Amino acid sequence: MCRWLAYSGSPILLEELLYKPGHSLIDQSLHSRLGATTTNGDGFGVGWYGVTDTPGVFHGTEPAWNDRNLRHITGHVTSPLVFAHIRASTGTAIQETNCHPFRHGRWLWMHNGAIRDFPLVKRDLAFAVDPSLYPEIEGSTDSELFFFLALTFGLEDDAPRAVERAVGLIEETGRRHGVEHPIQMTVATTDGARVWSFRYSSEGDSRSLFYSTSIHTLRAQYPGNPTLHELSEETRLVVSEPLGDLAGAWNEVPESSWGMIQDGEDEIHPFTPQAAA
Amino acid sequence: MCRWLAYSGSPILLEELLYKPGHSLIDQSLHSRLGATTTNGDGFGVGWYGVTDTPGVFHGTEPAWNDRNLRHITGHVTSPLVFAHIRASTGTAIQETNCHPFRHGRWLWMHNGAIRDFPLVKRDLAFAVDPSLYPEIEGSTDSELFFFLALTFGLEDDAPRAVERAVGLIEETGRRHGVEHPIQMTVATTDGARVWSFRYSSEGDSRSLFYSTSIHTLRAQYPGNPTLHELSEETRLVVSEPLGDLAGAWNEVPESSWGMIQDGEDEIHPFTPQAAA
Amino acid sequence: MCRWLAYSGSPILLEELLYKPGHSLIDQSLHSRLGATTTNGDGFGVGWYGVTDTPGVFHGTEPAWNDRNLRHITGHVTSPLVFAHIRASTGTAIQETNCHPFRHGRWLWMHNGAIRDFPLVKRDLAFAVDPSLYPEIEGSTDSELFFFLALTFGLEDDAPRAVERAVGLIEETGRRHGVEHPIQMTVATTDGARVWSFRYSSEGDSRSLFYSTSIHTLRAQYPGNPTLHELSEETRLVVSEPLGDLAGAWNEVPESSWGMIQDGEDEIHPFTPQAAA
Amino acid sequence: MCRWLAYSGSPILLEELLYKPGHSLIDQSLHSRLGATTTNGDGFGVGWYGVTDTPGVFHGTEPAWNDRNLRHITGHVTSPLVFAHIRASTGTAIQETNCHPFRHGRWLWMHNGAIRDFPLVKRDLAFAVDPSLYPEIEGSTDSELFFFLALTFGLEDDAPRAVERAVGLIEETGRRHGVEHPIQMTVATTDGARVWSFRYSSEGDSRSLFYSTSIHTLRAQYPGNPTLHELSEETRLVVSEPLGDLAGAWNEVPESSWGMIQDGEDEIHPFTPQAAA
Repeated sequence: MCRWLAYSGSPILLEELLYKPGHSLIDQSLHSRLGATTTNGDGFGVGWYGVTDTPGVFHGTEPAWNDRNLRHITGHVTSPLVFAHIRASTGTAIQETNCHPFRHGRWLWMHNGAIRDFPLVKRDLAFAVDPSLYPEIEGSTDSELFFFLALTFGLEDDAPRAVERAVGLIEETGRRHGVEHPIQMTVATTDGARVWSFRYSSEGDSRSLFYSTSIHTLRAQYPGNPTLHELSEETRLVVSEPLGDLAGAWNEVPESSWGMIQDGEDEIHPFTPQAAA
Repeated sequence: MCRWLAYSGSPILLEELLYKPGHSLIDQSLHSRLGATTTNGDGFGVGWYGVTDTPGVFHGTEPAWNDRNLRHITGHVTSPLVFAHIRASTGTAIQETNCHPFRHGRWLWMHNGAIRDFPLVKRDLAFAVDPSLYPEIEGSTDSELFFFLALTFGLEDDAPRAVERAVGLIEETGRRHGVEHPIQMTVATTDGARVWSFRYSSEGDSRSLFYSTSIHTLRAQYPGNPTLHELSEETRLVVSEPLGDLAGAWNEVPESSWGMIQDGEDEIHPFTPQAAA
Repeated sequence: MCRWLAYSGSPILLEELLYKPGHSLIDQSLHSRLGATTTNGDGFGVGWYGVTDTPGVFHGTEPAWNDRNLRHITGHVTSPLVFAHIRASTGTAIQETNCHPFRHGRWLWMHNGAIRDFPLVKRDLAFAVDPSLYPEIEGSTDSELFFFLALTFGLEDDAPRAVERAVGLIEETGRRHGVEHPIQMTVATTDGARVWSFRYSSEGDSRSLFYSTSIHTLRAQYPGNPTLHELSEETRLVVSEPLGDLAGAWNEVPESSWGMIQDGEDEIHPFTPQAAA
Repeated sequence: MCRWLAYSGSPILLEELLYKPGHSLIDQSLHSRLGATTTNGDGFGVGWYGVTDTPGVFHGTEPAWNDRNLRHITGHVTSPLVFAHIRASTGTAIQETNCHPFRHGRWLWMHNGAIRDFPLVKRDLAFAVDPSLYPEIEGSTDSELFFFLALTFGLEDDAPRAVERAVGLIEETGRRHGVEHPIQMTVATTDGARVWSFRYSSEGDSRSLFYSTSIHTLRAQYPGNPTLHELSEETRLVVSEPLGDLAGAWNEVPESSWGMIQDGEDEIHPFTPQAAA
């Protein structure tokens, strides 16, 4: 499985986000506490928004903990919206085209979990992808195919509904092939303005997912912490496992739900897979 | 495009085959004379038979000319049947799963050329792959998909016929999508005993392909060349462009034909794409 | 040998600089016209200034022409001062620590050419490096060692003088070991504010080096070219071989000379190696 | 730190050695039990003897657990003498020239541990390497420099004595620079016929090292185990931590000692660093 982090808020040096916190994402690449695996060393990826309409991405097949380019580049790029992901392969090849976050136009997508018995269902799912999108699939992972299914079902128009339909199709397809629990997932996706995150699994026992407490609340709790006063009130993090050690800084995303981070009120809603037809 | 080499005969140190000849395959990675591109630096691959039933393979994403592992490994492995390939990508990603020779069970496959307008026809062709084989496609190239089509059409039972049917489908599919000349190819494939090679293109103007003159003839011509006396009479090479500079050592494979190298008489036949249905 | 480019002026998207010109640096990685080798595919590097005091760097061991991260990252980073380098190894390993530009604190350094018979002189030169700097040498190239010699001789205080002393030592050491022409070089170095470039060779026949004509002059010559009007008057390029095809856009750096690009008047002076003692 | 394995005996498929045992070396790359770190994911290397005088080597910068070439190559190469190493970097770069086993002529060398405060002592130690050997140092690790010191002190003539002198110099140099415990080490080296292994640390508390019980003894203990009856009586393994789970199969190498595996009686002796002068 994997670990990931989504950040939205005050422009931040990527290095501050990825390396500086106590139990940082880079630390999690060697010492994950809550993941399915301790080591997440099968490649990594970072996506960020800033200079142009589309996000920049940097993918690597090395473990995040020893990649010098990751260190150097994140030390010299700032962004108000960052996705980062460290991978633990469940079998597919270690190559850049299998590294998250995946990009399509303005959109980024990353996933922790698996489409179970993927070889059994891969062909059916691949042919459900819109023919105009199909040639853009570059890698061999369940996660990228899941992204293209969500795009097929209208991710760019109504993200939560599109993911519900993609998951509906994945579950239906898996069950037709005798897979008991077809999907396990936490997902983050963004169009560069809003960030959606999802926590769901067919068995109702999903991988961990947390979002940061509002900066406002944290400031009241920790009046002496300068970092909290530099960040805007809209700044939010969604993470596979908590970074750092401020007590009260993290809320667990409820089982079977999705949330949206945006300017103004954030939202959390139940997540209900939809029949694809 | 690419360059490749197939060797069958007396067991040989791979390094002798790949590095030692005058205009060796490694030299062709920097200075191809007859290829569509001078530089073939987008990865490489070697496959060989020996210790077990299935072939060993080594794929690299670096240029062949600067890869130290390729040098070291080929200096310490001998084999009677070797495939080697250097890649010039026509757009798909540089990753090991896109490197030739591709392997399936006992079989190896390598290709120079292209399925033209591949994004247009990829989905239709992928659909035509046998569902039981489909999940084994690991990369994103036209060449690997072509291999899986040949496997679908019975490569393991009747190699020439299977390739003729695969090419028939590729041409039919391409033309349905408005592609004038759907395929350009030289191909080599082997089951570890026999080697088949193919030269064909929809436009009747195919990439260069040569096979070595019989050792017997060469020995008569060059009585003082010791290397020629160490190799068995059955030893043969098929190459994208001639190695070394023995005049008379190479014959061009005729346009639109296939050949088979085996113990006993070699064969050359016309190649005629077959309607897939 | 290698090819490089140094840019100073109006903040520019790195992709505009590296990919967009007619005969761009990326194009030179496959098709160099003036270099010692046509192909410069043994790794690459980019360095840029911007967010913090020190420069960002990105090094890759793949050929520049096929590296997707290079494309993606340069498409999302802007900078007013950029160094870029494509490598053709003269024998040392293809690894990130051998990729230019090399960095030390605020400084970047890149080199085209060679310290000739480097294995003969390497030990003597390595022990001439200041002991406090010695442990920071990470790679195995002549070019990085040259950088550390220049640092030893005071690069940070008086760059031209330090390079003259480093070259003096290299020539003296080479000649002591019987090397006829100990050095061949074009070099660029910067502290993030000023850029120095050098063209020299022991044999007086140095690799090509060009600097761009003043934007002011170019504007007068091409009143209809909008790009030239977007760039500040201080914008300058120094390159191993001319980019694009504006006639009159490039001046050759004279044999045995060094130049400095800075706010205000640029300078060109003769380059004279100095005895190290 | 790292983990390693040295095998000498009946020719074996490398895959059998590296992947098949219960707690194999590849398993140790993710889940080391006795190492300084659980994860040894900073590259790997394999060296083997067979086809020619010198050993073949294959080095990779990826984690061993996910490298497909390692899997494929080791599945198709057999050898009577194999070295394998998985790396956990203590700071130096992840690159092939830093991967063990290091090679010089017929010799291989691998190391687990560290020369402590290496930046402090590196220059003095590099100076002590024989000038004729110096240019062959390709990487930046303490382990490779240690190898070149041992070569300088006569490894090829008297391996134990040469290592004792190298360690003597390392300890003397370290102490001169105020390093309390200058070296921590297990080392294996071979000329292709005999294998020497060393366990030592300045603090007298060395990394774990085990050698296999004689096959003769194991056969008596496990009469029903067929593998043990296929291996020759001379077959031996030396490993950082035990593979598999045959009780009684492993002996710990005593603290501060060296051993030699050869045809005939193996030997174990005390290891005593020697003053270099």
